[in-house]
Amino acid sequence: SHSINLAVIPGDGIGQEVVAQGLKVLAAVLPQDVKLETEEYDFGARRYHATGETLTDADLESLKKHDAILLGAIGDPSVPSGVLERGFLLKLRFAFDHHVNLRPSKLLPGVATPLAGQPEIDFVVVREGTEGPYTGNGGTIRKGTAHEVATEVSVNTAFGVERVVRDAFARAQARPRKKLTLVHKNNVLTFAGHLWTDTFDRVAQEFPEVTTDYLHVDAATIFLVTDPARFDVIVTDNLFGDIITDLAAAVSGGIGVAASGNINPSRDFPSMFEPVHGSAPDIAGQGKADPTATVLSVALLLRHLGHEAEAARVEAAVEADLTERGAAVRTTDEIGDALAARVAS
Amino acid sequence: SHSINLAVIPGDGIGQEVVAQGLKVLAAVLPQDVKLETEEYDFGARRYHATGETLTDADLESLKKHDAILLGAIGDPSVPSGVLERGFLLKLRFAFDHHVNLRPSKLLPGVATPLAGQPEIDFVVVREGTEGPYTGNGGTIRKGTAHEVATEVSVNTAFGVERVVRDAFARAQARPRKKLTLVHKNNVLTFAGHLWTDTFDRVAQEFPEVTTDYLHVDAATIFLVTDPARFDVIVTDNLFGDIITDLAAAVSGGIGVAASGNINPSRDFPSMFEPVHGSAPDIAGQGKADPTATVLSVALLLRHLGHEAEAARVEAAVEADLTERGAAVRTTDEIGDALAARVAS
Ligand SMILES: CC(C)[C@H](C(=O)O)[C@@H](O)C(=O)O
Ligand SMILES: CC(C)[C@H](C(=O)O)[C@@H](O)C(=O)O
Repeated sequence: SHSINLAVIPGDGIGQEVVAQGLKVLAAVLPQDVKLETEEYDFGARRYHATGETLTDADLESLKKHDAILLGAIGDPSVPSGVLERGFLLKLRFAFDHHVNLRPSKLLPGVATPLAGQPEIDFVVVREGTEGPYTGNGGTIRKGTAHEVATEVSVNTAFGVERVVRDAFARAQARPRKKLTLVHKNNVLTFAGHLWTDTFDRVAQEFPEVTTDYLHVDAATIFLVTDPARFDVIVTDNLFGDIITDLAAAVSGGIGVAASGNINPSRDFPSMFEPVHGSAPDIAGQGKADPTATVLSVALLLRHLGHEAEAARVEAAVEADLTERGAAVRTTDEIGDALAARVAS
Repeated sequence: SHSINLAVIPGDGIGQEVVAQGLKVLAAVLPQDVKLETEEYDFGARRYHATGETLTDADLESLKKHDAILLGAIGDPSVPSGVLERGFLLKLRFAFDHHVNLRPSKLLPGVATPLAGQPEIDFVVVREGTEGPYTGNGGTIRKGTAHEVATEVSVNTAFGVERVVRDAFARAQARPRKKLTLVHKNNVLTFAGHLWTDTFDRVAQEFPEVTTDYLHVDAATIFLVTDPARFDVIVTDNLFGDIITDLAAAVSGGIGVAASGNINPSRDFPSMFEPVHGSAPDIAGQGKADPTATVLSVALLLRHLGHEAEAARVEAAVEADLTERGAAVRTTDEIGDALAARVAS
């Protein structure tokens, strides 16, 4: 396609600042003949306070017209926990069927990690995005009394598990090491565990070149700190994926450089790309936020839209910048400028 | 009491070897006037293969007569995943209402950790043990078809949440730093999240000296590797507790030294003490297993039974041993002998 029609959601806190840098780099890397059109949306805490709305049907209709969505961050302490998460972020992931939640982790030489010995880390987590404990199923009875019961229902379907497992096998197949690890807790969550494990084993037959492996989620957290090099591609449930990708980000350069794509591979709906970090209200507006995670999310966006060469150029620019970064303290804007300059040259 | 009537479940894999050392140290530390009686049970993979039984009503009746239970490890690759976990380990925790699953983490000077810079780590996780996603509620329809749906229901009650939150506040109150962190995912699991958060905030009123804090489970995994010193006492749900205590063990000396107590504070039923590590069949029978986690579990057992001085002596012996351990390779038996000698002197 010779134009990209992008929905931009800066959102709350540092969202505004980091998205500006993402757009700067995107504009710099695109060939002249690709026209970039952007439409900005004002979702987030301010709109919620002003109107009580988080994401309406009309909003979804409007967002649907775009090729992709770039999101900064949504969330503010002034809004009760869960309102924007369930009412915006998860509502959007579910409405647009973002079932492949893609989260790469790569530790670059020289980049700070809490782990000793600078281990090799280069893997990608394929987190299911539309099922599991995230469906909002469940409820409360006798709320606020000594007899309250609250339930959360994890819903797992053959359809939902198979498509994400298949996506993960295809990604593993396309990587040099061709290794896929299923992470679950099938010894305790036996109903969902059987479905995941049986599906994984069945789809594996179609990918004889891919080496497979299974780890309980608790054991996976151990290996993420003692032997992260063992991972190539991981496929896992929505909640386990949420947990292990934050840990993965922490060990591979920090949440400031962790990108993610909420992908609908069918393209029936636009996919959404966002840094894993949140809105960080404590440092908002100070030019301190690291826009790298947003810029890497732009690379995932470019790849998703078929601009592989440009995606690779953005990633190479980030890798060069990170490796040379050292202890220098730069503003959000300076990092964005440096990355834009690198991709343009 | 001047006698301890202990049920001993060596179990599978390295369970036999490590439990032998735990008993050795227990015998060495007890004053002469305390009589130690032990009864060994043959639960685990062998019995399951021979009889098809994991834990019968008669077994529970028999176990109930003891003051406490010492468990090595249960689990073997020859048994399908989930059979012994649900049929033995979880069945026992639920039958004896082990609602306080206590898991201390302490990194000692000189002990290997995957984290750079040898951070200070000294906290305890109070994991709920009888609710949450561990209840076995849920099910499967259309199994094995393209239309399979598998659910897992997390069940959370005011009764169950309050008693473990209260226990955690009391533990925090008794520690020098008096800090308690609630770990949950209340922005997504809003039904259970509200119950946990509301209960936590309410009980906090009764403990004005305790500083409180809340972290989402994903953020907690980040801090466990970037700033573990921030933790003093953590209280959390059954599944989140499972995950973060394995990570906590990994960063604070490894799974070889992580102890746990499955505690029923009411003493209506015997509490059970076990190392966090599993049966490790790959190294079973070779004298390679580290019995330290079992010995530290014996310390928790002693404390639970009111033998505080003896518990402290076992912990001091382990701390001295770990600090002086260095790179020397010792057998399971040699470590047990060394610890027994230390507590006896
Ligand atoms: C904010 C929250 C709803 C979200 C999630 O749990 O998925 C976040 O933690 C993430 O990982 O994108
Ligand atoms: C073996 C399994 C049932 C158990 C659990 O999930 O609780 C284990 O991982 C643990 O942490 O004690």
